[in-house]
Amino acid sequence: MRVPTYEEQLTAVIGAVSSPDPAAEERAWARLDSLTKPPRSLGRLETIAAQVARVQGTDHPTVTGKTVLLMAGDHGVVAEGVSAYPQDVTWQMVANFAAGGAAINQICASVGADVSVHDVGVAKDLGDFAGIVHANVAHGTANMAVGPAMTREQTAQAVLVGVEAVRAVAAAGTTLVGTGEMGIGNTSAASAIASAFTGVPPSQLVGRGTGLDDAGVVHKTGVVARALVVNAVESLDGLGKLAAVGGLEIAALVGVVIGAAEQRVVVISDGFISAAATLAALALCPAARDYVMPSHLSTEPGHAVVLEYLGLKPILELDMRLGEGTGAALAMGIVDSACRVISGMATFAEAGVAEAGA
Amino acid sequence: MRVPTYEEQLTAVIGAVSSPDPAAEERAWARLDSLTKPPRSLGRLETIAAQVARVQGTDHPTVTGKTVLLMAGDHGVVAEGVSAYPQDVTWQMVANFAAGGAAINQICASVGADVSVHDVGVAKDLGDFAGIVHANVAHGTANMAVGPAMTREQTAQAVLVGVEAVRAVAAAGTTLVGTGEMGIGNTSAASAIASAFTGVPPSQLVGRGTGLDDAGVVHKTGVVARALVVNAVESLDGLGKLAAVGGLEIAALVGVVIGAAEQRVVVISDGFISAAATLAALALCPAARDYVMPSHLSTEPGHAVVLEYLGLKPILELDMRLGEGTGAALAMGIVDSACRVISGMATFAEAGVAEAGA
Repeated sequence: MRVPTYEEQLTAVIGAVSSPDPAAEERAWARLDSLTKPPRSLGRLETIAAQVARVQGTDHPTVTGKTVLLMAGDHGVVAEGVSAYPQDVTWQMVANFAAGGAAINQICASVGADVSVHDVGVAKDLGDFAGIVHANVAHGTANMAVGPAMTREQTAQAVLVGVEAVRAVAAAGTTLVGTGEMGIGNTSAASAIASAFTGVPPSQLVGRGTGLDDAGVVHKTGVVARALVVNAVESLDGLGKLAAVGGLEIAALVGVVIGAAEQRVVVISDGFISAAATLAALALCPAARDYVMPSHLSTEPGHAVVLEYLGLKPILELDMRLGEGTGAALAMGIVDSACRVISGMATFAEAGVAEAGA
Repeated sequence: MRVPTYEEQLTAVIGAVSSPDPAAEERAWARLDSLTKPPRSLGRLETIAAQVARVQGTDHPTVTGKTVLLMAGDHGVVAEGVSAYPQDVTWQMVANFAAGGAAINQICASVGADVSVHDVGVAKDLGDFAGIVHANVAHGTANMAVGPAMTREQTAQAVLVGVEAVRAVAAAGTTLVGTGEMGIGNTSAASAIASAFTGVPPSQLVGRGTGLDDAGVVHKTGVVARALVVNAVESLDGLGKLAAVGGLEIAALVGVVIGAAEQRVVVISDGFISAAATLAALALCPAARDYVMPSHLSTEPGHAVVLEYLGLKPILELDMRLGEGTGAALAMGIVDSACRVISGMATFAEAGVAEAGA
């Protein structure tokens, strides 16, 4: 019997995803309105609780385990001079994550979340690195400004890394996953993906990334535009677009979104790069929509464009632009609070509190 | 020797408050810019960390203990029909807080904070209630629509309850306090305070509170306007304004702000009622300014007006309007993350990560 290709395996995973039953969300709203507070007075916390209720199929949703899945990969497009930082920073930051010295480590400690760091496409051989998941598909992508960043099979393989990552942490008790990434050059790839899937021109999507000046932004915009033309992305299907202008860590995050839907856990999408991955994931697998929760609004201009296109309203707006999953981790704290409210509060009847107009 | 009046005691407390030294904040910014992230890429988290650094006098600020100080009191103005809920809800909710069934209990559990509930002015005698701090100054205020809500001495006594509350929790290890309140009718008092201290007319400040309809808001606006005229608030000093149209729990929150400055801990101001208390506190004690951090933006219209007047930009915007300290508790999670970032992250040198342009 022939071994299925990665693309065939991915097609099977996507085919198994279905939307959650809305009945649990209806029960959740009835419960929220019975709790000792004026109806709807907790605003966004209540809509968050209702979404988690729907995904978990219960009006007493809980967050018993939180994990940020941090995918790392390098980008051939850095040869075009699109980043303020050298490519070695990708693996150096992977080492920093493993040692606990990065922002994501500290924020996850604050909210009680784990970080699981995956080498999906780091340029340097990290074979001897402890404390990370080894899932390298290729040592960086090709330069999208001169041809496809990845083959379709590499892309599907990287997506499946993300699917498998969710399966592993869900089996270990995680009920809330967050997307995180590290990859010098990946705001260029994210801008190209955003343009390819939304039709919005690169000039409205490209930003400073880790710290470009105005001239750098102009140059980067030109590189992204060239990548879109060189690869004729308009003629490609979803997986083809992702292969042409994506990244290995971005493809893995596409898999995290699809895998979360498969495992019926909420996935919190972090910043601009994660939003680009979510955009691609929902193009490939529309049934994953209800499992996705936004986190924050990045200062990277493309983020607002993609969130609006997806109809996602960010929970936090803290002028952050770091990535790593930092916004997703902060939002996890809010989601935990929302679930404790709906599941732990007393009703008016239980507490013996009078209702409005009584 | 004559026993000093409450007002004299309060004057002495205010006189002892001084602004924190800005030098620690300068060192904090230097440290933040040395950490393994693009400079300023954590946005608001960095400004939060810098403020806590300044208050704590160190570039390694920490949050080792968090407490929401929840002050409860009743309002004579409910006789005018300004609330959707009956007055008994105040003591019923105090019982609910003590039993752990309210939203604030759940959110505090989520962020690892304690709740300390104080009876400062509940109408019902709560002498036999367990699990609360007994500091009742009076069994509710008088009706501000026909005369002063409190005497100056009652007001100063209630402020000192808040000062003492901060002293007690600071001595027990709290390094971050939040303001919380419960009191049927207190959005009317908060609207009157906001108008008295800012000069903005009640029509721009009064909202639905716990759930008034349009006609109810019009009526409530008229009651607040009458209270301001009847008490001739324009002619009064700060303590006089607070006495005329304030509340016992609101006065205690004024004391929480002043007490936090005295104890050199950051105080997170919750929603509209807390903002009104902060407004009065900073009028009485301008040196407390640097110790105050906002939390969220309430949907109650007066909140945005007061925050803008005070120059405070909310951290969260989640369409909440419950009070109890729920927004302050959520913000405590963000402040904890910010302090872990500045104090726990590795520097570029420590982690061996290349800097921009390297």
